[in-house]
Amino acid sequence: MSSYKLRFVPLGGVVGVTKNMYVYELYENEKLRDILIVDCGIGFPMEKELGVDFVIPDVSYLTDKKDKIRAVILSHGHEDHTSALPYHYDSLGRPPVFASRLTVAFVENKFKEFNQNVDLNQVVYEKEYQFGLFRVSFIRVTHSIPDTFHILIKTPVGNIYHGTDFKLDLTPPYGNHPDFYAITKAGKDGVLCLLSDCLGAEREGLTLSENIVGQTFEEEMRKTRGKFIMTTFSSNISRIRQCVEAAIKFNRKIVFLGRSMKENTRIASEIGYLPIPDSLTAKEEEVIRLAPNKVCLIAAGSQGQYDSALAKLATKRNPFVKIKPNDKIIFSSDPIPGNENEVYALIEELSMQGADVIYSDIHDQLHASGHGNQEDLKYLIRFTNPSYFIPIGGTIRHQHQYQKLVTDLGYKKEQVFLLDEGENVWFSSGKAGRGDSIETKNIYVDAYGIGDVGNVVLRDRKTLASEGVVSVVLVLDSQGKLVTRPKFLSRGFVYEAGEESLFSEATRLIERVLKPKGGRVIDFNNVRKETTAVLENFFFKKRGRKPLIIVDIIQI
Amino acid sequence: MSSYKLRFVPLGGVVGVTKNMYVYELYENEKLRDILIVDCGIGFPMEKELGVDFVIPDVSYLTDKKDKIRAVILSHGHEDHTSALPYHYDSLGRPPVFASRLTVAFVENKFKEFNQNVDLNQVVYEKEYQFGLFRVSFIRVTHSIPDTFHILIKTPVGNIYHGTDFKLDLTPPYGNHPDFYAITKAGKDGVLCLLSDCLGAEREGLTLSENIVGQTFEEEMRKTRGKFIMTTFSSNISRIRQCVEAAIKFNRKIVFLGRSMKENTRIASEIGYLPIPDSLTAKEEEVIRLAPNKVCLIAAGSQGQYDSALAKLATKRNPFVKIKPNDKIIFSSDPIPGNENEVYALIEELSMQGADVIYSDIHDQLHASGHGNQEDLKYLIRFTNPSYFIPIGGTIRHQHQYQKLVTDLGYKKEQVFLLDEGENVWFSSGKAGRGDSIETKNIYVDAYGIGDVGNVVLRDRKTLASEGVVSVVLVLDSQGKLVTRPKFLSRGFVYEAGEESLFSEATRLIERVLKPKGGRVIDFNNVRKETTAVLENFFFKKRGRKPLIIVDIIQI
Repeated sequence: MSSYKLRFVPLGGVVGVTKNMYVYELYENEKLRDILIVDCGIGFPMEKELGVDFVIPDVSYLTDKKDKIRAVILSHGHEDHTSALPYHYDSLGRPPVFASRLTVAFVENKFKEFNQNVDLNQVVYEKEYQFGLFRVSFIRVTHSIPDTFHILIKTPVGNIYHGTDFKLDLTPPYGNHPDFYAITKAGKDGVLCLLSDCLGAEREGLTLSENIVGQTFEEEMRKTRGKFIMTTFSSNISRIRQCVEAAIKFNRKIVFLGRSMKENTRIASEIGYLPIPDSLTAKEEEVIRLAPNKVCLIAAGSQGQYDSALAKLATKRNPFVKIKPNDKIIFSSDPIPGNENEVYALIEELSMQGADVIYSDIHDQLHASGHGNQEDLKYLIRFTNPSYFIPIGGTIRHQHQYQKLVTDLGYKKEQVFLLDEGENVWFSSGKAGRGDSIETKNIYVDAYGIGDVGNVVLRDRKTLASEGVVSVVLVLDSQGKLVTRPKFLSRGFVYEAGEESLFSEATRLIERVLKPKGGRVIDFNNVRKETTAVLENFFFKKRGRKPLIIVDIIQI
Repeated sequence: MSSYKLRFVPLGGVVGVTKNMYVYELYENEKLRDILIVDCGIGFPMEKELGVDFVIPDVSYLTDKKDKIRAVILSHGHEDHTSALPYHYDSLGRPPVFASRLTVAFVENKFKEFNQNVDLNQVVYEKEYQFGLFRVSFIRVTHSIPDTFHILIKTPVGNIYHGTDFKLDLTPPYGNHPDFYAITKAGKDGVLCLLSDCLGAEREGLTLSENIVGQTFEEEMRKTRGKFIMTTFSSNISRIRQCVEAAIKFNRKIVFLGRSMKENTRIASEIGYLPIPDSLTAKEEEVIRLAPNKVCLIAAGSQGQYDSALAKLATKRNPFVKIKPNDKIIFSSDPIPGNENEVYALIEELSMQGADVIYSDIHDQLHASGHGNQEDLKYLIRFTNPSYFIPIGGTIRHQHQYQKLVTDLGYKKEQVFLLDEGENVWFSSGKAGRGDSIETKNIYVDAYGIGDVGNVVLRDRKTLASEGVVSVVLVLDSQGKLVTRPKFLSRGFVYEAGEESLFSEATRLIERVLKPKGGRVIDFNNVRKETTAVLENFFFKKRGRKPLIIVDIIQI
């Protein structure tokens, strides 16, 4: 008889909330047999001020095992669960991908942008799929995007309930409520480990139903004499649809603003998730000719992103749409932790133009979180009654709160694994324990491509931001002799005009260092290193700073 | 092939909250085949000020069908679900009774008080019982008394989910949380009609867990330098146990006060539901010798009943236990609608003796309702997804709120039957409709027995209470001639001393009426009627009141 082990390795999605990617490895007689991957999303980095657009998971751990990857499952259509896949699809060996309807539509579109093909399959609920020895089924739940599912992964070692982002919404405005029978059935059959969304673990009670927001839209729209402008995440199709339905009721033309908003709503419309009568669609160019109380704008940019549609309205960079008094702007989203400054700055700019801006701090029911509060989380625990727990999709502080919640329900602290990225858990015959960590690094993506921005670049950017830069140009002859005096240029370091003596001294220092040493072979690399070291040392001694030193060598 | 019909007849428990009794009748080819009865409880009448102790259901509708009664199921141990059974057990043909452990213990004791035998069976969960063509299983839920279950009744017509009193408590202090799998499985298999507790339908959110109260007991006990006195319903064994456990922690001796409290806690202890170390039990006679901070009293009388243990403390009628400053008295219960005046009067009396009295209005977490709030109720609906609904266990206003809740979830108003007592619903092949009402009456029970107090008596008591009484004594000879002048006595009508002329006039009137009419046969009944009518009319004309007239005829 074979012996089996299962290893769970998060390559993201723990500690940092976003960049979700989870690896399940099944070992048969100590030999890796099958790999199942859940989600492959982008992350929103803390380093965003350093020019990084987003991060993607580091899959280098998988590259020599890609022949074992049986499937990639995408739990829902949010970018932090799906959008890294085109970057890695080749490295993963182009495995079959399984997702629900809306997710399939979004991902298909994303791959099209990359001019890539993908083996994409729309899952059927209440059916069991076989991926190697993994037997997998999908369980309908509710979240801030339609078509979200949880994943029941049956393995020879035990059953894993992968409870990705969710709340228990009994009255979702569209689509079904969670499949409580399937969830409790999983519990009845025995769950070895529950992986659970933990982002709401600090918040008491149940999460508000999404449908509360629709009522708010109607009430606010009724009171609005000017343009009605709503902003939310462009993937939040339910929220957008509720706004659209209110607009239809009040006979306002619906205008989408922002690339991602236009793109997502187009896809959702195509598959019937966002029906809008033709008579009520309009383009932003037409807004200028429409009566303000006949317009409902739905804009991307709820997180205060500088280049977003909403920011352009705020700073009068949209030639067709101008904010006016009597306009109402509704933020139907909360700032993601870290974005608060940008969001409040945006709110202030919009308010200054006389619009009535409404946001969560001043109105309770503008936004319902997509993530379960404590009671939602407790229900999932009671439904599944697992032997072990792994909180995912939250920060360390959320993980700890989740652990507390679990112990409040009578479980032991030791049953909960708090994992950082790359940390992992082994399961075998009903037991679980930590494995050796896998090393991972962040892979940064910016407008110019993937991986272009490495850790060194970011370290440099950090130095530039805090210390400034000094460049020095050395013109050398073939013997390595200085042809002219070294030329200094600095930015962000000291105010050059007042520091002539500092740079003259540095010049003399370099001249001394580069005095011909008699050797014939000039190693320009050594020259560069030595110059850098000397200057770093010198400037730090003189001014207490370590600017980035750039040494340009020109050989003539 | 046979055709089947099912009729649901509530003999109580609708409109009036208490006096729960529900009848299911299964008809085969239009012929009554099997009857199943759920609960048989007493009711707390609105007429309590008229000397009625309680009411019991009227089972006269069942008496000619008792041979069809296959079983009586008692959903939990509260008196309004069980305590009428000894009164009716013979009339129902002594059918087998099914209940859970604690309920069995309570009911056994009740029958013992009546010197009756009963065929009482403790149910096993996850087992299906056959009662005629009814296939019945029991589903663990949570309520303010341990061992409460819901009942899944499978019939040839469809499945009924009988969702008696419950809340969804994820962290009950003792016993299991609800069996969510069994509930959702019922939904998956198809529920024709959900009968649901609706008493909490007005309250938003989820009901607090029972375990919150235990924390409160500890906190309050820690701060209390005098005696700690807790009052709640004497059937609330979980609540009592939480108080006992706090007392054990603080090394206070536990004293039960009141007959029902002593009785219920004795039974619960005997079956292991209320463990108390011998060293910490004490009798009320000993309290006087114990240090106040070493005593925890648990007293019946939370509803302000005049003769209860707590009322006796308040009015210094307990010779052994005196309320002192520094004592703390906790009301861990809310007034049942209608009892507010008595409860607040009691609180005031206790406060006047210097005790620190804490009750729901001034402290949030003293009491957790045993009945589900809106979200609990919604969950049950989503779990079972029935075709029809019947709210039970609430007043008309709760029924209406429940109906609103159901329609908020997307069902149609017509799917909800709001029933008064005796009103009923027919089910056949997936359809449902109202039947002709069954006539029922209240059967009043007071200290002197059952049925002694009829509707006439109550009407009289009402008249006495609002109009007073006038008695007149007629002494007649064998010819029907007045031997002496009629003698009047009145109470609660007018102040007699100042009303001599009124009664002289009445006397003359009677003498005139009773003047011999020449006939030989004296019909005393007629004399009584005529006198009554004449006096009623006279007093109403003169004083605008209709006192109860008592005519005593003495024949000499």
